[in-house]
Amino acid sequence: MRFDEAYSGNVFILSKQDYETADAVLYGMPMDWTVSFRPGSRFGPARIREASLGLEEYSPYADKHLEEVNYFDAGDIPLPFGNPQRSLDLIEEYVTTLLDAGKFPLGMGGEHLVSWPIFKALKNKYDDFAIIHIDAHADLREQYEGEPLSHSTPIRKACGLIGAENVYSFGIRSGMREEFQFARESGMHMHKFDVAEPLKKVLPTLAGRNVYVTIDIDVLDPAHAPGTGTAEAGGITSKELLEAIHLISESDINIIGADLVEVAPIYDPSEQTPIAAGKFLREILLGWVNK
Amino acid sequence: MRFDEAYSGNVFILSKQDYETADAVLYGMPMDWTVSFRPGSRFGPARIREASLGLEEYSPYADKHLEEVNYFDAGDIPLPFGNPQRSLDLIEEYVTTLLDAGKFPLGMGGEHLVSWPIFKALKNKYDDFAIIHIDAHADLREQYEGEPLSHSTPIRKACGLIGAENVYSFGIRSGMREEFQFARESGMHMHKFDVAEPLKKVLPTLAGRNVYVTIDIDVLDPAHAPGTGTAEAGGITSKELLEAIHLISESDINIIGADLVEVAPIYDPSEQTPIAAGKFLREILLGWVNK
Amino acid sequence: MRFDEAYSGNVFILSKQDYETADAVLYGMPMDWTVSFRPGSRFGPARIREASLGLEEYSPYADKHLEEVNYFDAGDIPLPFGNPQRSLDLIEEYVTTLLDAGKFPLGMGGEHLVSWPIFKALKNKYDDFAIIHIDAHADLREQYEGEPLSHSTPIRKACGLIGAENVYSFGIRSGMREEFQFARESGMHMHKFDVAEPLKKVLPTLAGRNVYVTIDIDVLDPAHAPGTGTAEAGGITSKELLEAIHLISESDINIIGADLVEVAPIYDPSEQTPIAAGKFLREILLGWVNK
Amino acid sequence: MRFDEAYSGNVFILSKQDYETADAVLYGMPMDWTVSFRPGSRFGPARIREASLGLEEYSPYADKHLEEVNYFDAGDIPLPFGNPQRSLDLIEEYVTTLLDAGKFPLGMGGEHLVSWPIFKALKNKYDDFAIIHIDAHADLREQYEGEPLSHSTPIRKACGLIGAENVYSFGIRSGMREEFQFARESGMHMHKFDVAEPLKKVLPTLAGRNVYVTIDIDVLDPAHAPGTGTAEAGGITSKELLEAIHLISESDINIIGADLVEVAPIYDPSEQTPIAAGKFLREILLGWVNK
Amino acid sequence: MRFDEAYSGNVFILSKQDYETADAVLYGMPMDWTVSFRPGSRFGPARIREASLGLEEYSPYADKHLEEVNYFDAGDIPLPFGNPQRSLDLIEEYVTTLLDAGKFPLGMGGEHLVSWPIFKALKNKYDDFAIIHIDAHADLREQYEGEPLSHSTPIRKACGLIGAENVYSFGIRSGMREEFQFARESGMHMHKFDVAEPLKKVLPTLAGRNVYVTIDIDVLDPAHAPGTGTAEAGGITSKELLEAIHLISESDINIIGADLVEVAPIYDPSEQTPIAAGKFLREILLGWVNK
Amino acid sequence: MRFDEAYSGNVFILSKQDYETADAVLYGMPMDWTVSFRPGSRFGPARIREASLGLEEYSPYADKHLEEVNYFDAGDIPLPFGNPQRSLDLIEEYVTTLLDAGKFPLGMGGEHLVSWPIFKALKNKYDDFAIIHIDAHADLREQYEGEPLSHSTPIRKACGLIGAENVYSFGIRSGMREEFQFARESGMHMHKFDVAEPLKKVLPTLAGRNVYVTIDIDVLDPAHAPGTGTAEAGGITSKELLEAIHLISESDINIIGADLVEVAPIYDPSEQTPIAAGKFLREILLGWVNK
Repeated sequence: MRFDEAYSGNVFILSKQDYETADAVLYGMPMDWTVSFRPGSRFGPARIREASLGLEEYSPYADKHLEEVNYFDAGDIPLPFGNPQRSLDLIEEYVTTLLDAGKFPLGMGGEHLVSWPIFKALKNKYDDFAIIHIDAHADLREQYEGEPLSHSTPIRKACGLIGAENVYSFGIRSGMREEFQFARESGMHMHKFDVAEPLKKVLPTLAGRNVYVTIDIDVLDPAHAPGTGTAEAGGITSKELLEAIHLISESDINIIGADLVEVAPIYDPSEQTPIAAGKFLREILLGWVNK
Repeated sequence: MRFDEAYSGNVFILSKQDYETADAVLYGMPMDWTVSFRPGSRFGPARIREASLGLEEYSPYADKHLEEVNYFDAGDIPLPFGNPQRSLDLIEEYVTTLLDAGKFPLGMGGEHLVSWPIFKALKNKYDDFAIIHIDAHADLREQYEGEPLSHSTPIRKACGLIGAENVYSFGIRSGMREEFQFARESGMHMHKFDVAEPLKKVLPTLAGRNVYVTIDIDVLDPAHAPGTGTAEAGGITSKELLEAIHLISESDINIIGADLVEVAPIYDPSEQTPIAAGKFLREILLGWVNK
Repeated sequence: MRFDEAYSGNVFILSKQDYETADAVLYGMPMDWTVSFRPGSRFGPARIREASLGLEEYSPYADKHLEEVNYFDAGDIPLPFGNPQRSLDLIEEYVTTLLDAGKFPLGMGGEHLVSWPIFKALKNKYDDFAIIHIDAHADLREQYEGEPLSHSTPIRKACGLIGAENVYSFGIRSGMREEFQFARESGMHMHKFDVAEPLKKVLPTLAGRNVYVTIDIDVLDPAHAPGTGTAEAGGITSKELLEAIHLISESDINIIGADLVEVAPIYDPSEQTPIAAGKFLREILLGWVNK
Repeated sequence: MRFDEAYSGNVFILSKQDYETADAVLYGMPMDWTVSFRPGSRFGPARIREASLGLEEYSPYADKHLEEVNYFDAGDIPLPFGNPQRSLDLIEEYVTTLLDAGKFPLGMGGEHLVSWPIFKALKNKYDDFAIIHIDAHADLREQYEGEPLSHSTPIRKACGLIGAENVYSFGIRSGMREEFQFARESGMHMHKFDVAEPLKKVLPTLAGRNVYVTIDIDVLDPAHAPGTGTAEAGGITSKELLEAIHLISESDINIIGADLVEVAPIYDPSEQTPIAAGKFLREILLGWVNK
Repeated sequence: MRFDEAYSGNVFILSKQDYETADAVLYGMPMDWTVSFRPGSRFGPARIREASLGLEEYSPYADKHLEEVNYFDAGDIPLPFGNPQRSLDLIEEYVTTLLDAGKFPLGMGGEHLVSWPIFKALKNKYDDFAIIHIDAHADLREQYEGEPLSHSTPIRKACGLIGAENVYSFGIRSGMREEFQFARESGMHMHKFDVAEPLKKVLPTLAGRNVYVTIDIDVLDPAHAPGTGTAEAGGITSKELLEAIHLISESDINIIGADLVEVAPIYDPSEQTPIAAGKFLREILLGWVNK
Repeated sequence: MRFDEAYSGNVFILSKQDYETADAVLYGMPMDWTVSFRPGSRFGPARIREASLGLEEYSPYADKHLEEVNYFDAGDIPLPFGNPQRSLDLIEEYVTTLLDAGKFPLGMGGEHLVSWPIFKALKNKYDDFAIIHIDAHADLREQYEGEPLSHSTPIRKACGLIGAENVYSFGIRSGMREEFQFARESGMHMHKFDVAEPLKKVLPTLAGRNVYVTIDIDVLDPAHAPGTGTAEAGGITSKELLEAIHLISESDINIIGADLVEVAPIYDPSEQTPIAAGKFLREILLGWVNK
């Protein structure tokens, strides 16, 4: 079940060799063809894996070691260049396979549109679940320049799929007027600008529920994540995003999967964005799988 | 048969096509010839315009849309390379034209010395006005290496022009001993290291007055604005500068113009500095024009 | 009250202000959504225009000045992100308009697939024409990973459209086995590795014919054009490409249009690729329009 | 006593010309040969000196001028490439000379292992001293991949040399499980994640004692110091490190020397890391020498 | 026999999955700890593999496809950081295993010193063999700054091992006076500045002999290979190095192994050096294995 | 006679310590304030010195060692920022001092205008001398945008000073129509595009004469020298410039001084431009001093 080596590249630090017995599966979605401003996130998964080699395997935050988690890095799903619809179909199909096998799906983007087929696969398995969405952008557009398949639309689609009242956004600081209007009127829960403080209030209300978490790396200030397509000044620090991940680890929600998207290495010659993303994924593996 | 400017090239996002009816005029001053350490701010205005294309036109901070503001991007004033005096004369002349036509002048540097001819043009129109100066550097030198026309001198010159008691500096964390001595003895108002907190105290004391605001992008920490000539560690975040802009928007002062200077794109391969500068200008257009 | 375009922003140096009377029209096609390896050519046209400001307007090669050519820079065609088919339709439509108006179309990519709709527009106007194709890659695939709209296919499509015997490729040093097989068997004219020498032999055989020229910047060695998506070692020098352009200028063929594609600025922090591309376009304007 | 000019490069701003009368000696240790992930800190000292030319000589934090401190920049110790043991011996020998001459040793790394021979030289002079260690990494390994001379081991070695109870670490956010276990069990004082707040509590307990301070630049978040070998997300700001330096300046401890290590310029095209390091060294010279 | 995935990274394009049946083995030697000027070649093998994904699998030079060659990418040998002697021992041991198994060893550096243990392993198998050395530097030093294990010494050591008369250097343009003196007096064959022309004369004299080929990427001009530690102006083009590889392919010598060293990606943000290196390795696999 | 260390930075490899006994003096002119397009050459001299540390001290081209030449690196002349006239006066004054002391002046720019005061200083000493000018640009303008002190004018001024018939330009590939017209009509000797071939013809005609040589690094193709302000495609290789330097070394002319200008490191993250410049200066020191 490992994708062809020649395309999937290296593996995340300490990945187990065996898919069958793994509890979680890490997989890449190297797609950026609907990106409107600066493309390049297709190289995100490969560089995160490469950067992960510089990480410690132990977390002093969680006091846990990656050896305690049984995960398998499946490589990148081979997506057809420039064909959004077929790419999304392939992702939905793959995540469905993971869910059927009882694996925790942990995806790496790629542009944010890749979360949409994951939502659809989850809907087939879970009657009821909520989404925590951490991002600089509302991603609530119905279409972008006439195109319904766009990296600005996945959360709007999610509202349609599972009900706006089950969608919780954090850190939002950019979007069209219509998106913020929709956020106010639809019943969804939008928390602007900050992430950790509002999460502390929201998490107890989600106790016991199934929750999927999608993180767009651009929720960070460009100082902390210059390597992303639509950098937006005025964001949160890496420290705050780490705190948010740990708040979720310690909460009483049932996490059913997660993704981290929009790492675009070419804009970051210092490589700090993939280095940070690797650390976030380590903390997610340690805190969200088998919790 | 020219395609819409907002797509085809170098005009700030959503600039109106008509100078005559515009309330505000955005203009560039591509000059860096007195810069002592690292030149390159002459390319600041062009790259800010380019980066503005990645911005949303709506601000969730102000709940306003750029369509609500009537501004015109006039391009860059063609300044003669290596000739500071003639460059400054051209700027003064141009800003005088804007003021005569009742426009709100919004300038983009270029080095900080470009603010000096703007101050002079304003003095001809307004008997009484104050200056809010947000910067890492005091810019209070009388000369630099024997040269009175230097990017380290504009605020000292301003004190001479409108009276030191009308000059308010914020965020200052670098300068010569003599500059800080002058700040203490001259009657000017210098607030070191921070911007938003001291602004909250000062703004009420300026209520009802005419105020010009000049912002040097290097008030930001180099983490948030690496693309500048004299980066100085220990600065404020983009979040704090956004807060400062919004505090001014919500105050009772009468803003008569503004500039944002010292963006030097070459030192910032991630382009986060022009991207942030574009956002600051959007918030200024939305909050300071026609307030 | 807009300052002269040549100083204020993003128009190719010395572009005339008037579309109606122009002999040639320069236009951008900012599309890179079918690119398989490294995207980014969507920013090519804007950076070539910016770099053109550093060029002299006079050519010591041709002993001509850009003032002698009447051309208009129309900006970039606004193409829908991530939608290849609609993008190609828009290009075909626009170039048809140019041809109907008797303009010389000079396009800037964008990925090489943009040449395909241009070929179709030309076919509607000219019963008979030939194509000179200068490139590192054969671009003779029928599809790429199952996708018929790909930047690896335009020359194969051209062979179908105008007959393989009317297609002349130069400098080719990369492709699939099947592409080189097709080149040998189809009757097209492929010249591997070199450009200037084979051109000297081919040009006399095309005397008097209508010829369109499409240049992929990656025909240059990566030393001379690092800023491109699929850099391929072992290429020609800038000097040889200039020689090739001048050979065409001095030939007896009738040039009916041209394009220069695949400049991807992000991979070239030194900006030498857009700087070189600007010079090639200057020589093309001076030598190929109104010849 | 100045090392050969051809190797030692430029000098830190305002360095005095005379070694004999100097109170403090600034010296470089251009070694990075045991670095496990990204080498390059051998160029740290040279680029810090170069960046220091852009600094003001006066500090508005300390209200002091570099002219008030008598220090001499000795250049870089010429270390043999790829030979850790001989390099460390040369450092120990040189620092011993400085201590014998009554100089305040202020070292610039290079990798963190260079602190180890300094500790040994200090131990020969002082019966009793403590170490303040500011770093992202615990550096408490006994060996690294079987190699006892590694940049991950100097603080463990220090615990053996002067007693774990005399070692105080701040800002630690990365290490192996065994290192944190050792920290808990050995009696050393480890403060995770933060620096300034715990320092406020610890400094009074060290009043009157001899203390050496070693700072690894990677205690800063990569946003503030991208130019380092093992960047680790979730760190402190430049503002907090400046505050920590000033807290030490104002404390009642007796500082017997200091070093700043792990600046690796190649990962930071914006040069913000050496620029910040230069400022930290200025504040250290002004606040820690002759206090 | 594949090294641990977490360290070995991705694989060269079209590598077979099976070590046992492979004719050739590609392996990395990520070592740069004796490098005197600019380190970083430890990342060479990983980036060459990554860049290989952008290559075509077919060569129009050789008219061959990589499917025709049975090779296995073994990943990187896990070398102990900062310990040259143990690293060299591990390389010698690994290459000995390859030779015992009858594999064609194709190594990727890492610094040039890695060739020395390969020479030693070859000497144990072959009584008589010659070395073709293509490089900008003579690498004939006896030691470097007192250190006999240095990246400046491998060819001198080779002369001692197999007799200077069996060593043929090409393209040399840098070294100490003593190295050129040794070249003249020792009986070795040194060809300065050029590669392809002297090879044409030398290859017939080596017909029928066993020959190992070691290529230092810095034989290329920095224009063609900026990503290397000791770039030296005045070198050959990528075109000439391709020609040299093909001359060897077509010669009558018996190639018993090869390496390509000193790719240091960090100095080359355009990635043209690993892209070119990948192409050279493709041509070597197609032309030198099973010839 | 060494300029203040804090400004002059490091020293060129193997520089002697004594000004008095030196035959040649290497000095920097860190000025770029009249540069029209991309500034930054003020940092050229410092980075060339830094890069020189990676050079061998022996030249296999000349079979000479730098120890055989007695030269002194005087550091950079401290020039006042943004004041061209005073800067030029300081240069003229300094070079006059060198000439009076019988030193061979070897200057490093900075922008090309710095050659103008050198020409004037030479004219005071030598009644009759010729200039060899190697450059991409004619530099024959009378003024630039109305400014007579511009980096586009020094060769025109030279023609006025010593007679156009004594000026020999090589490699020219850019300029205004008027400049080429002047070249044709004034009696000066302009050789377009190439350097080595025309030099072979010209050098014998200059036998026995005093000749000053000024080299603009942009005569190289941007592939070989990306780090320069006005990069111009279609230039010569490093190999050809080395050949030109050696042709001059071996000629019968009497060289009275030289300069190498327009290295602007910021545009060249690979540092190949200062590395190449260092090698050119080594060959000049070995071949042109005391010949």
